[in-house]
Amino acid sequence: MTAPDPLLLSLNTATVRAQWTMDQIVEGCTRHGIRGIAPWRDQVAHAGLIATAQRVREHGLVVTGYCRGGMFPAVDAAGRRAARDDNRRAVDEALALGARCLVLVVGGLPKDAAGRPVSKDLAGARAMVRDGIAELLEYARPAGMPLAIEPLHPMYAADRACINTLAQANDVCDELAPEDDGALGVVIDVYHVWWDPHLAREIARAGAHKRLLAHHLCDWLVPTTDLLNDRGMMGDGVIDLPRIRQWMEAAGYRGFHEVEIFSTRWWKTDPDVVLDTCVRRYRDVT
Amino acid sequence: MTAPDPLLLSLNTATVRAQWTMDQIVEGCTRHGIRGIAPWRDQVAHAGLIATAQRVREHGLVVTGYCRGGMFPAVDAAGRRAARDDNRRAVDEALALGARCLVLVVGGLPKDAAGRPVSKDLAGARAMVRDGIAELLEYARPAGMPLAIEPLHPMYAADRACINTLAQANDVCDELAPEDDGALGVVIDVYHVWWDPHLAREIARAGAHKRLLAHHLCDWLVPTTDLLNDRGMMGDGVIDLPRIRQWMEAAGYRGFHEVEIFSTRWWKTDPDVVLDTCVRRYRDVT
Repeated sequence: MTAPDPLLLSLNTATVRAQWTMDQIVEGCTRHGIRGIAPWRDQVAHAGLIATAQRVREHGLVVTGYCRGGMFPAVDAAGRRAARDDNRRAVDEALALGARCLVLVVGGLPKDAAGRPVSKDLAGARAMVRDGIAELLEYARPAGMPLAIEPLHPMYAADRACINTLAQANDVCDELAPEDDGALGVVIDVYHVWWDPHLAREIARAGAHKRLLAHHLCDWLVPTTDLLNDRGMMGDGVIDLPRIRQWMEAAGYRGFHEVEIFSTRWWKTDPDVVLDTCVRRYRDVT
Repeated sequence: MTAPDPLLLSLNTATVRAQWTMDQIVEGCTRHGIRGIAPWRDQVAHAGLIATAQRVREHGLVVTGYCRGGMFPAVDAAGRRAARDDNRRAVDEALALGARCLVLVVGGLPKDAAGRPVSKDLAGARAMVRDGIAELLEYARPAGMPLAIEPLHPMYAADRACINTLAQANDVCDELAPEDDGALGVVIDVYHVWWDPHLAREIARAGAHKRLLAHHLCDWLVPTTDLLNDRGMMGDGVIDLPRIRQWMEAAGYRGFHEVEIFSTRWWKTDPDVVLDTCVRRYRDVT
């Protein structure tokens, strides 16, 4: 297997969100030779959309994805309209940033205002997700912003995303975008899908339909002590990262490899050490 | 939908393992009108196998399952032989107890002596699991002890079980026991499989081949604060329990419904309150 291309490393800004502002992250990427960046909406909002877009351009960074749209299920029509409007704004922002795709974390069971699930109808939530993606696609496709469905680990099915396998995401793409024009695709985040016995098959399937829009890297720690913020640095866990990258490349993926680590441990580390570690681990164990 | 049959409630002894001895659990079940019990090996070993079997018989309890065999993957042949021998002892114990099945938690990646994974080869671990089940089946089938593969939630793929969907378990059954004689089947634990978009289909598939050997109940809490010991009491979470029971019954399942709750919260509660709550929630929300 060939080594990963150092020019194709990208940094998801969540990885150092506790330590650095958007501007500092952009400068940090440049300092460490990282050519791609994937910002989150809250960080961009804080720094200013236009200012961030300009900063990213000045530094010659590729915006490998914009995080994130989605969260389609809602208790009522008003809630679904609010989600629709917010998602359209996310598409607009992604366009302003020149992002390669808008990442969709599709949402779980409908929630009340306090964030508590008010339904146990998972199939119903999945139908709302399909309908929400279909509607957003009508807005995003003519605008030229690809939508990237991110299947999330089944442990997030209730509260974050009820698309939990790559097969499910591929099925939604088959249904909503059979023309394979790149307007709708998937994100392969190793953390969410590494356990899937059909991962190789489904990556090949996505690739055959030109749907591989992004590849996110981190690692699964043993033990994992927190469901949200205990993701590992590449090499510190049990995911066979080179094998998954090989499957991606065999399926035709030529895009960036984006490090996204939610970790209270790494959020407490000097961010220059974090980025240096990302660069080395990407080179050595991915 | 019909109400659940109160005579088909079973208690997995892990539910009150922090408060009660085996003897106290047997007496507690009788006191609360619970007719089934599913003991764990460590608790049985502590109380004595023969004494436990006698106690359970005296109280007229049905042993709905014995927890547990499995943990097949190992770093070397000696480790796999040790697992084989231990699993055969588990079959013998299950027979002594008159258990309806031996539950198999199949194991994850091979570990070193300290319990740390020493391999990232998940496909290899799955092959070891298949081989281990095949070998154990040769011992268990003539002895008349059904083996019940329990697919575990994907968040346990690395360290507890690399069979993570019911489809995978069904595939193993297809391969190793195509004769559908009831010697090899599956456990449907709602906690592990509730998120699965193909759950209804795979329950029907298991039922069509006479493989539904047990049904475990608890609930998925939102938020879940611990990967191991934050399972919910039925009704406190988001799992649509009546729907899953309906799928089980439509697929021909007529066995017990076993409450198995790993929960630091419930382990701190008066065990008579726990059992009373189990009985009521089983009746009202399952």
